[in-house]
Amino acid sequence: MDTPTSSLPGPQVPVFNPPKRLLMGPGPTDVPERVLAAMARPTIGHLDPAFVEMMEQVKTLSRYVFQTSNPLTFPISAPGSVGMEACFVNLVEPGDTVVVCVNGVFGLRMVENVKRCGGTPVIVEDAWGEAVDPAKLRATLKSHPETKVVAFVQAETSTGVLSDAQTLAGIAHEHGALVIMDCVTSLGGVPVLIDAWGIDAAYSCSQKCLSCTPGLAPVTFSPRAIEHVYARKTPVQSWFLDLNLVMGYWSGEGGRTYHHTAPINPLYGLHEALRMIAEEGLESAWARHQRMHDLLKAGLGELGIELLVKPEARLPQVNTVLIPDGCNDAAVRKQLLTEYNLEIGAGLGALAGKVWRIGMLGYGAREENVQHCLSALREVLR
Amino acid sequence: MDTPTSSLPGPQVPVFNPPKRLLMGPGPTDVPERVLAAMARPTIGHLDPAFVEMMEQVKTLSRYVFQTSNPLTFPISAPGSVGMEACFVNLVEPGDTVVVCVNGVFGLRMVENVKRCGGTPVIVEDAWGEAVDPAKLRATLKSHPETKVVAFVQAETSTGVLSDAQTLAGIAHEHGALVIMDCVTSLGGVPVLIDAWGIDAAYSCSQKCLSCTPGLAPVTFSPRAIEHVYARKTPVQSWFLDLNLVMGYWSGEGGRTYHHTAPINPLYGLHEALRMIAEEGLESAWARHQRMHDLLKAGLGELGIELLVKPEARLPQVNTVLIPDGCNDAAVRKQLLTEYNLEIGAGLGALAGKVWRIGMLGYGAREENVQHCLSALREVLR
Repeated sequence: MDTPTSSLPGPQVPVFNPPKRLLMGPGPTDVPERVLAAMARPTIGHLDPAFVEMMEQVKTLSRYVFQTSNPLTFPISAPGSVGMEACFVNLVEPGDTVVVCVNGVFGLRMVENVKRCGGTPVIVEDAWGEAVDPAKLRATLKSHPETKVVAFVQAETSTGVLSDAQTLAGIAHEHGALVIMDCVTSLGGVPVLIDAWGIDAAYSCSQKCLSCTPGLAPVTFSPRAIEHVYARKTPVQSWFLDLNLVMGYWSGEGGRTYHHTAPINPLYGLHEALRMIAEEGLESAWARHQRMHDLLKAGLGELGIELLVKPEARLPQVNTVLIPDGCNDAAVRKQLLTEYNLEIGAGLGALAGKVWRIGMLGYGAREENVQHCLSALREVLR
Repeated sequence: MDTPTSSLPGPQVPVFNPPKRLLMGPGPTDVPERVLAAMARPTIGHLDPAFVEMMEQVKTLSRYVFQTSNPLTFPISAPGSVGMEACFVNLVEPGDTVVVCVNGVFGLRMVENVKRCGGTPVIVEDAWGEAVDPAKLRATLKSHPETKVVAFVQAETSTGVLSDAQTLAGIAHEHGALVIMDCVTSLGGVPVLIDAWGIDAAYSCSQKCLSCTPGLAPVTFSPRAIEHVYARKTPVQSWFLDLNLVMGYWSGEGGRTYHHTAPINPLYGLHEALRMIAEEGLESAWARHQRMHDLLKAGLGELGIELLVKPEARLPQVNTVLIPDGCNDAAVRKQLLTEYNLEIGAGLGALAGKVWRIGMLGYGAREENVQHCLSALREVLR
């Protein structure tokens, strides 16, 4: 009998070599080699002066993509959904009225957040596939003068709809409400002008038009929003997301206070991804997304595939298309994945089984990707 | 005048090349090349069948390091502090009595979590540098028969103290309480036997004895704990951490439900880091940490440096040493970092300025590191 070296042998699990996919769903998108390489650099401490310097650069670059001068602009150490939660748990207290514009999955998630904060949600509802109607928001605010916060999704990932953030924020301000905006899918792909529009709190994610790995949620808070956090009557219900504590690490003047251990290597990746956007320039990136959308739309037209969303509300980076009649949703997506290594997105919620979502986000918005997607669809749907 | 290509030019930020440090603080620790390389592999979708298969392997490997058969064993997509919060927000409801054993920073953080859940914390206090006293816990539970949860930190990262988890959990169970255990610093370095000890909920992190990048928090919940989550009278206050929802993604039978987008590349890293532990075997890893501790202790003795913690409660992987008289804490740590590229940890909370924390965690627990640390200290303190 062999002498066992351990009575607790570990499970035998092979090394994981992911297949090389072309990611054309609603995110994550393809991550450029430069960003992947950055993530593989040696880990250093989360209070190392070199790391703190890099954090400052990430804040500077984040302010650029958000087009804001808000000092409190940084990535939350968790996915975009936690960015959403950070905005709500800090700005909503029990009993607060929060008007939420709902036209898809992520508006519904906002409502769920308001409830869990003890707030009272008032819903402005629009159809899935339609933009938020400013007139409805205005009417709702008139009948709810007690409203403290208005929240909306600029770009609904579940439907591919772009709403008019500037107009919605303007209406909210006329009524003295704070504005929380979801720009998870918009940031880096279409204009997001935090200061010009007067957005008080916004959150995004790393894996869409920023082209980084998922797991980080850039957020920005206006000085007015922070005043509200300071003036709370109740403690923030989340220790991790309490901005009073987080600020000591990300904004500590004259030294950083340990709060949690930041995700070092993913932040290297985000730093590099943001550098790529700064190199290209935001306006060039926005124009590129629009060009790729036009190209895809033309090709889809030749295949007889229609878009769900009206032209004036179409988001260039997430194209929601109606599944052609007689087509087996799951089978087509599976064939695209296994035979073409191409991932496109399924419909979510009310649109499940009715649409596909073709994403061209950030680094993924390239002509070769559009052509590969169109030719794969052409063959599979033949 | 040059024609501007953009009116929104991006900030000029150089590429970030981190210095190569030897990380001998309380974490993060050095990440092996194998793990760094894994993180740089191509990103795929969070619902890709290949990714789902990898998730299953991460669960299998996590069950091994936790020594549990709990089906609900997986990494939370956020740092260890969020692992803590996940345990408390799911198991504590407003009005619940929670006995928390406090002998350092992380016990205090548990108290903070209990309060933010609306629970009533009852504190069992021991000095910083001492283990939790089982007799005090027993006495407290006798006077608080209404206690629903007992929470303690197995290995206090702030002091380098190991408490007797098996005994503490046994006492809690005698009184019918659920047990939440922090094994952030213990997991992979000393025995953590979730099933044998009857721990109901435990959380750890990726960047200590698992030797991965920070940002993930392995957790495990017993079937009994999950029954309590199902039986809650109030919703979990965090949408992101509500196990009722998270289980649909990490444990969905016959298909995964989208919840949030998992941090793909960091999970590649964790998969590889866990594979390394499985290859070595837990008992070999525990023995290696003990050997390195003995080696360090002997060397520190030659330098006249004393350990804070009594031998019976010393954690091998975080060695808390008393700063020698006349020594400038910050200046020495700065010199070690800048001249030797060596990071050691400062004291936290009540021990700030009084101790250093020398970590030898996971991949960092190697003889060459111990020798480098000792020779650097010898030169700097001369």
